Amino acid sequence: MIPQRYNGKLVRNGIATEVADCLATEIPLSIAVNYEPFTVTMCTPGKEIELARGLLFTEGIYRDVNKYFGISFARQDEGLLVNVELPKDKILKQFSGSRNVASVSSCGMCGKTEFECTTTAIDVTTKPVLEWFVIEQMFTAMRQHQQAFDESGGTHAAAAFTSNGELLDVQEDIGRHNAVDKVIGSLLLQNALHKAACLTVSGRISYEIVNKVLVAGIPFLASVSAPSTMAVDIAQRSGLTLLAFCRGDKFTAYTYPESIGSKVQETETVS
Amino acid sequence: MIPQRYNGKLVRNGIATEVADCLATEIPLSIAVNYEPFTVTMCTPGKEIELARGLLFTEGIYRDVNKYFGISFARQDEGLLVNVELPKDKILKQFSGSRNVASVSSCGMCGKTEFECTTTAIDVTTKPVLEWFVIEQMFTAMRQHQQAFDESGGTHAAAAFTSNGELLDVQEDIGRHNAVDKVIGSLLLQNALHKAACLTVSGRISYEIVNKVLVAGIPFLASVSAPSTMAVDIAQRSGLTLLAFCRGDKFTAYTYPESIGSKVQETETVS
Repeated sequence: MIPQRYNGKLVRNGIATEVADCLATEIPLSIAVNYEPFTVTMCTPGKEIELARGLLFTEGIYRDVNKYFGISFARQDEGLLVNVELPKDKILKQFSGSRNVASVSSCGMCGKTEFECTTTAIDVTTKPVLEWFVIEQMFTAMRQHQQAFDESGGTHAAAAFTSNGELLDVQEDIGRHNAVDKVIGSLLLQNALHKAACLTVSGRISYEIVNKVLVAGIPFLASVSAPSTMAVDIAQRSGLTLLAFCRGDKFTAYTYPESIGSKVQETETVS
Repeated sequence: MIPQRYNGKLVRNGIATEVADCLATEIPLSIAVNYEPFTVTMCTPGKEIELARGLLFTEGIYRDVNKYFGISFARQDEGLLVNVELPKDKILKQFSGSRNVASVSSCGMCGKTEFECTTTAIDVTTKPVLEWFVIEQMFTAMRQHQQAFDESGGTHAAAAFTSNGELLDVQEDIGRHNAVDKVIGSLLLQNALHKAACLTVSGRISYEIVNKVLVAGIPFLASVSAPSTMAVDIAQRSGLTLLAFCRGDKFTAYTYPESIGSKVQETETVS
């Protein structure tokens, strides 16, 4: 469970510094029961067998507290695989068919029995440039609309902006994926999705948030919080500018820092 | 999207005060396509049509940007229902069978095509009492083990404790549900689940976290962060003591405050 280091450009008040930050590792773990796919969860590597044991228990598939069962673990090119061998008569719930799918992580991949990467790419040649000072303005605007958060402390927000930082839409929801889907759905219903240059989110950036923004064709994604390794990897591969830890006059660009204005001054590299 | 007020007992340094806090509303939303169940997401009410439109788009079911389609919305006893009418030849992905299920919120219900409440109850007559000063000690102990969080800022933690506050297990993961499942799985593998009196989590308490803790038979659940309305409702119905906003010498008990020590002094009600 060792976080990986990723190069980024920390921009503070228009001054950029090279950084190498530890990010939380995110990787797909496929869980199979008797070699039949059960679910996929995006997780942090480590304690995969404990995760499979706990998930099958809390999902009501296998509830025997005392008995142990056969588990095999494999690393594959596309992620991790745990197969759990259970006696057929001890499996408490059918999990084939349309109701098989488990509640898992907050990644959004949950429910899919096989890992499936459906990302589309942003055309970097036609991508707009976002000025660095617009980033703080966008987060200030989103924060002003977080009424449910002010009242409850328990909701996430997402918002869409033009490349000039004009607010197009802002939504709140207890689920961070829902807040993103509400914004994208709202823009679609207003026939305004093509105007969106940046999506801002209050929560962490996991694989699935990147995927949703790519499907919507929005070229910038920015968060108050941390990104995962997989979020940065896919953003890099797909032409998406990923900004994280956007707080006050600071943010870190983990991909395509060149798409952030022309006025950013470079300082000496900090190792 | 108006948060609901819930009564709680705010305990600070052993002194209890009645409070009425706004909590984020969590409710199951069933999304159907042509009256066939597609998925269930736990969400905050409001903008359900936008959510359905966005989710079907980002999940690659219906990708037409310009066209609108028929949507009906209903409130049912068990939650909300949106049905989306799509021309069959425009549905881009088959969603029947084992791969139908969408990526949705961080609630953990995602993937299930029908809402299903599988909670079991805690026996309140045999439940242990947790002393108020143990709460802070547990969170201090969990925090000391959050190595991945210290390095990356992007992981959640969960930990299990005895009723005396003895640490049994602590795990980190990018997914808050995974961290809980890793702890429960680890306790099962150590044959130590029966020793667990309290599960602490770093993230918000949604319905699904309550459900996992109830399935594991753990009578106390405590979080640094906020609970949802549904989390409190189910905890109340199931004998679970739910503590939230556990920060330093403060916490708020939203259910069964009588199970928190005997030394808590009552003060005047604050309205």
